[in-house]
Amino acid sequence: MTTRVLEPPFLICNPKAYLGSADTLKLATLTDELAGEFGIDVLFTAQHVDLRMVSEHTKNLTITAQHMDPIVKGRGMGFILPESLVEAGAKAVVLNHAEHQLTLDVLDATMRRAREVGLATVVCADSDAQCRAIATMGPAMMICEPTANIGTGKMDAGDYVARTTKIVKEVNPEILVIQAAGVTDGQDVANALAQGADSSGGTSGIVQNPDWRQVLTEMFTAIAEHKKNA
Amino acid sequence: MTTRVLEPPFLICNPKAYLGSADTLKLATLTDELAGEFGIDVLFTAQHVDLRMVSEHTKNLTITAQHMDPIVKGRGMGFILPESLVEAGAKAVVLNHAEHQLTLDVLDATMRRAREVGLATVVCADSDAQCRAIATMGPAMMICEPTANIGTGKMDAGDYVARTTKIVKEVNPEILVIQAAGVTDGQDVANALAQGADSSGGTSGIVQNPDWRQVLTEMFTAIAEHKKNA
Amino acid sequence: MTTRVLEPPFLICNPKAYLGSADTLKLATLTDELAGEFGIDVLFTAQHVDLRMVSEHTKNLTITAQHMDPIVKGRGMGFILPESLVEAGAKAVVLNHAEHQLTLDVLDATMRRAREVGLATVVCADSDAQCRAIATMGPAMMICEPTANIGTGKMDAGDYVARTTKIVKEVNPEILVIQAAGVTDGQDVANALAQGADSSGGTSGIVQNPDWRQVLTEMFTAIAEHKKNA
Amino acid sequence: MTTRVLEPPFLICNPKAYLGSADTLKLATLTDELAGEFGIDVLFTAQHVDLRMVSEHTKNLTITAQHMDPIVKGRGMGFILPESLVEAGAKAVVLNHAEHQLTLDVLDATMRRAREVGLATVVCADSDAQCRAIATMGPAMMICEPTANIGTGKMDAGDYVARTTKIVKEVNPEILVIQAAGVTDGQDVANALAQGADSSGGTSGIVQNPDWRQVLTEMFTAIAEHKKNA
Repeated sequence: MTTRVLEPPFLICNPKAYLGSADTLKLATLTDELAGEFGIDVLFTAQHVDLRMVSEHTKNLTITAQHMDPIVKGRGMGFILPESLVEAGAKAVVLNHAEHQLTLDVLDATMRRAREVGLATVVCADSDAQCRAIATMGPAMMICEPTANIGTGKMDAGDYVARTTKIVKEVNPEILVIQAAGVTDGQDVANALAQGADSSGGTSGIVQNPDWRQVLTEMFTAIAEHKKNA
Repeated sequence: MTTRVLEPPFLICNPKAYLGSADTLKLATLTDELAGEFGIDVLFTAQHVDLRMVSEHTKNLTITAQHMDPIVKGRGMGFILPESLVEAGAKAVVLNHAEHQLTLDVLDATMRRAREVGLATVVCADSDAQCRAIATMGPAMMICEPTANIGTGKMDAGDYVARTTKIVKEVNPEILVIQAAGVTDGQDVANALAQGADSSGGTSGIVQNPDWRQVLTEMFTAIAEHKKNA
Repeated sequence: MTTRVLEPPFLICNPKAYLGSADTLKLATLTDELAGEFGIDVLFTAQHVDLRMVSEHTKNLTITAQHMDPIVKGRGMGFILPESLVEAGAKAVVLNHAEHQLTLDVLDATMRRAREVGLATVVCADSDAQCRAIATMGPAMMICEPTANIGTGKMDAGDYVARTTKIVKEVNPEILVIQAAGVTDGQDVANALAQGADSSGGTSGIVQNPDWRQVLTEMFTAIAEHKKNA
Repeated sequence: MTTRVLEPPFLICNPKAYLGSADTLKLATLTDELAGEFGIDVLFTAQHVDLRMVSEHTKNLTITAQHMDPIVKGRGMGFILPESLVEAGAKAVVLNHAEHQLTLDVLDATMRRAREVGLATVVCADSDAQCRAIATMGPAMMICEPTANIGTGKMDAGDYVARTTKIVKEVNPEILVIQAAGVTDGQDVANALAQGADSSGGTSGIVQNPDWRQVLTEMFTAIAEHKKNA
């Protein structure tokens, strides 16, 4: 990675499968508007079926696929072709999420395909051992998440964020580390960045908040504060 | 299934992962044009990322997803949400393809989700035993394919087409049977329909033909002839 | 199936992975002793590593593997070779358990391998649709289990047992139906048999009972009563 | 790993699923006899169903399971319980073989279970990236294999053996490296050891040789020569 697809500190907004197409577009355009106002980068994921639509209606977001397969043009019924993600406007792809884990062999092959087509890789890991192993494979970004905290609205009470960020950076300081498990407000985002993370944000902490504009503004504000003080 | 999403005899055009987005759109608009001219229905599949685009640029095709997952709105990072397929314009979904097989439990759950969101199911099977078992589950359509013949350009030399079509119809005559393994031209399509199939067409026999208009016209002509003589 | 490997009504004792080798042997020899006294057949499963040991130390049990793979002699590192199960003394094999589900294609291939090597198949199913589909594939036996009740110590409160047994028998009356989800005592076994099942017994209801001899004696007694009144 | 389960240079004899129980026992007792004569350690794998039998009939072999699952005593129908492998006499377990790959999360959990029950881990990897990632996880041993060469009877023509052995040792010099892909005779074993491997031997190169005693003697001789000159 000589050029980064986005600059830290940045926000991750990862609605997973929580939103249908219309709601995804609403969240994306709102996030895009705020990203422009704050001048802060955003990694925004969407269901495959919505990627092109989100890409066409936004300008400040790094459009990111939630998964892809290591296939090449040909067979592969029902699998996700890397080339088509690029044609749809995606710049990055999340791999090996706790809810969608890959064998090491498939992860390795998919990371190679990402490099071939020019997608930045965002690879997920849980334990210290997994974080270290993945870091040696040279992803552009990593999402470190203690599986037990995903979707709980509570961050790890111990030193998970600081410890795993350090593990990754010691292996390869170029890797941008995203820490977002259990994050629900601006204070959580500030905490994650204060412990060394390059990015925070999340899924349920955003999409399940009744006021998207409010929670996103809080999170962008926390990132802007961190940036100013850096 | 009281109402059918398409009327037999119909064409299946299933480019799998052979084509990027731009080529998929070319094939879709050409097929759409010919479908209109011939007045024949078409089951057209596309990569998830291209479904909305194909839907927005065509009017005679039954837009079909190549796979979906039995998830509901919520977690499910990187999996395909049924509701979003519907929002993107899909009317049907292929499940259990030889290249993307499901456990019986997941297939059952995914067929239930398809009914909930209003997608017609197109379920694949190989051996006689698999064709019979799937037929009892009540899909709207079935693709019967001897795995050994997929992508070979050669249809089964024995009685596979007639035999498996009969097995399915004996279990449930409402199920529309697609026979397309190894089909490459109008004569193959005519043969499949003559042996009882409700639909034929294919993947490599179409996308790898250097002249899409010619091969599709041949196939539509064979279907129109069959319809006229029925 | 012209010859049955065991005669209904029979007991199923399926310790899954609850017991180490020494405890498995204790449970097997106790069950074997009681099976001899009651003159009632038993389908007894064990971890693969323990199958030969259990076979060598018992004489009244139908030794059953908890899974096998459709491989033939050759590659297949870490997978279970059907021929070796037979050499170890197994007479039957459970397939597609809720905790170990198979694609329809693999299930079909594994059932063919079982026929080739002479193992009776015991195939699991959950919903009505799954029970019907599996029944068409001609297993020797089926375990019908509503997944939600496995390991709970409570049988289905509705008509699951009677309804799914009937579904299977209507497709193929030769299939022996095992109903054991949530069964914990002799009364539960009696209930299952009264509703049409050919066999009952279970896992946690037996292995987690502090007095194996007592619970097994209860269950054998219930089966003997049912047999007498049949 | 403060204590090693076997001393390098050692032989690996991994019959995978090539042999039924009777033949596995023949190969094991022959290998055991030669291991005693040569005073050289052997990592000997067997189908789960045969592990106890092989353990009971040999004394010089490190009995090794070809796979296990990260389950604990309880549910897990058809999966391999670590504790039972130990009770059957196994001292080590192969994980993540090219024919049986695991997600990183499952591999991590299974390695933790191995440590809990006292089994040495033998973890497989293919590419440089995979070898490096696995090495960071601290297995006792690694099998480095270019997937393309498995079962071909031809070793990698380039520097795969030397290169991947070096990668692993640089991460952690305590890890014993096994290089056996495409190895068929004593010369191949000598080559592997000369390039830095701690062990060689194989599967098809041994089991498909019509004269097991001859090929094993060749391989043991090569290891003994290497040891003498070390």
